[in-house]
Order: sequence, then structure tokens, then C-alpha cells
Amino acid sequence: MGEGKKRKNQAPRRRRWDLEAVLPQLLRAAQGATVLNLLPSAIHELNNALNTILGFADLWGSDPSLPKTFREDLQTLSGSGLQARELLTILRFFAEGVPTEVQVVPVDVREVCKEVGKILAAAFRRHRARLIQNLEENVPTILSDAARLRFILSALLQNACEAIAHTGREGQIRLSVTRSSEGGITLIVEDDGTGFENAEALTNFVPFTTTKPTGKGAGLGLFLVRQLVEDLQGKLEVHSTPSGTRVTIHLPSLPLPSQV
Amino acid sequence: MGEGKKRKNQAPRRRRWDLEAVLPQLLRAAQGATVLNLLPSAIHELNNALNTILGFADLWGSDPSLPKTFREDLQTLSGSGLQARELLTILRFFAEGVPTEVQVVPVDVREVCKEVGKILAAAFRRHRARLIQNLEENVPTILSDAARLRFILSALLQNACEAIAHTGREGQIRLSVTRSSEGGITLIVEDDGTGFENAEALTNFVPFTTTKPTGKGAGLGLFLVRQLVEDLQGKLEVHSTPSGTRVTIHLPSLPLPSQV
Repeated sequence: MGEGKKRKNQAPRRRRWDLEAVLPQLLRAAQGATVLNLLPSAIHELNNALNTILGFADLWGSDPSLPKTFREDLQTLSGSGLQARELLTILRFFAEGVPTEVQVVPVDVREVCKEVGKILAAAFRRHRARLIQNLEENVPTILSDAARLRFILSALLQNACEAIAHTGREGQIRLSVTRSSEGGITLIVEDDGTGFENAEALTNFVPFTTTKPTGKGAGLGLFLVRQLVEDLQGKLEVHSTPSGTRVTIHLPSLPLPSQV
Repeated sequence: MGEGKKRKNQAPRRRRWDLEAVLPQLLRAAQGATVLNLLPSAIHELNNALNTILGFADLWGSDPSLPKTFREDLQTLSGSGLQARELLTILRFFAEGVPTEVQVVPVDVREVCKEVGKILAAAFRRHRARLIQNLEENVPTILSDAARLRFILSALLQNACEAIAHTGREGQIRLSVTRSSEGGITLIVEDDGTGFENAEALTNFVPFTTTKPTGKGAGLGLFLVRQLVEDLQGKLEVHSTPSGTRVTIHLPSLPLPSQV
């Protein structure tokens, strides 16, 4: 790859932090870990409740004695139930986190983009961020790790949304996926919000460096993204100005484990 | 208080870590932060779907033309919908995290215990951990911070559940809340799982120290608990043997902000 070598020639990253200085961010991260741990249980309980609801909806849907108007309403109810179940499925993917080792499987990147867009829909509405997805039809299914890709996309879209929230006005997030050379993909997340203030943090991705108010962000977003992109043997470019940020990621289609 | 003074006389805590050594835990924490950020949006979308479902259930419940057996099933459906809504409310509390400053309000500790028990119910079932809640009737409503208390309880119950999971057999978690002197409460979480291996980590609560397999736990549980207990001006005692762990927390009823 030559990547490891290249990095050794660069200035060494800062490797140690002072506990007091990063305490608020650390506590935020600890809260995140606690929530991450209880989430599978919460999702399971919610799913049980939804199954009961959808079970009755199924039962009633096949009962000809119930009035016609009722059956139309029932379809709306079932639709909401199925939508909730889909959201729980996406949420469960996130709750599972990324596996320690990269798990290479065929990944439909456009599908992952749609999932992440759905789960963040309320955040976009709330911050008046309009998500424009430009997902080319001919984007190939790549061999990659879906869990890592999901976290990369989610972290980038959250950053973009917050950058727009900072402006206090409405904004746009453009998410595009295109076919790149050698069967890989290029993923671009672009926002017209406030850019990053700390250019050093952008290029070095020092964990716990954040431009957000104390205790609000964990300062781990881009740190996580960089690490996950490296896991997927991809490349990451960040371009930020006061009027917006563009993050470009090139991801190759990886060899299947048996081919390594 | 005398607490600050006392601590200064002890050996100083380790204040710096090596990045490479804590990278897996750091990445787990970063994932947690990412999920914590997307959770409010997911909960909002799920709530919308549930509102549609409960809206129709209400409508049908007041329609006398529908058959009687149907109306009985409808009550079960409504019950599941309401249960899901309650779970989402508890989950939203967790998603909001703890406020930077302690927010003193009247807190019904027994209610918080019940909430946390509900959201972790599936985790307890899965790991064959039986939760036995011993919540005294005469436990007073204390002035404290409900969000902090919720995270303390959740982290302790998760630890207890994992300690039982490690044994590979079923186990018991006892959660008791009793009235203590001066209007405060004493909270005890006791499990019969494997104890903590690292006694030093227990007493010093070094963040990112974990006895769990790499990448599984963030090693932030007890670190978070200790910090939150200190925020609430409480005291924390941990007693761990190979056959179980008991955590005791004494929490005072705090003065209201206006009385400070």
C-alpha cells in the first residue's frame, strides 16, 4: 500500500492528552458508550411491541367482515408499523457498532446512503438542512464493510447538519456517490454551513478536538471517520472554508478474505 | 465536604495515556458518540410512526360499529403501542445525555430504577440475569439530577449484567434503594457474577481500563459513574470478590439552586 510508510515521514501525531483538559469530551464519550450498550435491549423491547401491532394488523387485514374504510386506515397503520420496524433495523446496525476486524461483504453503497438518510431525517428537518442525494444509477456494489461505511456516512452527515445548524439559517447537504476507477466508489458530502475553525484538527484529526460548545460534541467524529476510512483502505480529503465543507472519500472494492 | 482535601493526600491519578494503547476503546467511544448524536432523530421518527398507530387505535376504540372481539384485540394493540412509547421516552432521556451543569429537581429514585429496569429488560433476559428490585416504600423523593442518576444506574446494571454473562450461567442482580440519614438515599447494586480482575482500576477508575475483550467495552463505565456520583455530592464504594460485586452509593438530597 505504501500508506504506512508515507505516514511515518509526516510529523508524528500528538499522542498524549491531559485528563483534565479532555474531561468534558471524555464524559460525553462515556455516556455514548453507556447508551450504545443499552440500545440493543431497548430495540429488542420495541421490536416486540411492534410485532404485536403488526400481527394484529395482518390478522385484521384478512378479515372480510370488517368495513372497507377501516381496511384503508389499517393500511396506513401497517405502513407506519413497517416504517418503524425498518428504522429499528437501521438503528440496530448502529447499535452493533463496527466489528473489530473488517468484514468484507458485497455492499450496496446507495442502500447504505438511503438508510442513513432515513434515520437522520428528523435531525435534518429540525436544523432546516435539506439533504440532496445524488446517487448514480451505475454505482457498483463494492466489496467493503457495511458497518464501517454506515458510521462514516453518519458521522459526516451529522457534521454537515451541525455546520448548517451553526449558521442559524437553512442549508443544503449534498451527498453524492459515483463510480470511480478500478471498481471503487467516490463519496462526497458537501455542506454550505460554517466551516471548521481549526484547520490543524482537520488535517491531523486529533481526538477530543472539537469546535462545538463544551460537552456538546465528543470531538471524535472526524477521528472516527479517518480511522474507518483507513480500515477500508480508502482515501479521505477534507476541504473547508468559512462558507462550507466538502469531504471526499475514495473507497476501493476490497478483495474477499478467501482471495487474500 | 473535605473530599477534595482528602483526595489531594492520595497518590495522584494517572493523567496521560498512550494513543495507540487506548485506540480500540477510543474508537468504541467514538461510535457511541456517533450513535448518541443520531438517536434523537431516530426516536423522533419512531414516535411519529407510533403516533399514527395510536391515533387509529383511539379512533377505532370509540367506534361502536366494530365487533366486540376486535375491540378486545385493539386493547392489546394499544397496550403495545403505549409500551413502545414509554420505552421511547426513557430512551430519549438517555439520548439527551447529562446536562453540563447539575440540574437539581425533585427526583423519585424508585421511578428512575423502574425505567432503567424496563429499558434493560431484554439484556437481563438474554444473559439470564434476574433483576430483583428492592425499592422501599418510604424512600423519599430527593433533590438531585435525574439524568445523572439514570446514567449511574444504567452503567452499574450493565456492569452487573456483563459480570453475570461472563460466568456463563444464570445469576441475580439485586437493586435496592433505602432511605438514608438526612433525607438522602442509599443505592446498592449487587451481582453474583465474576468480580473485577483489576482492583487498581476499581479504586482509581482509570478511564479506558477494561477487563472486557478488546473493542467490546469502552472501559468508561465506572469512570463515568464516579464522576457523576461526585457531581451529585455522593459517595461511592465498590466491593468486589471473584464471586460478585457490590456497589454502594450514598446520595444526599441537594439544596435547590435558589437556596444555594
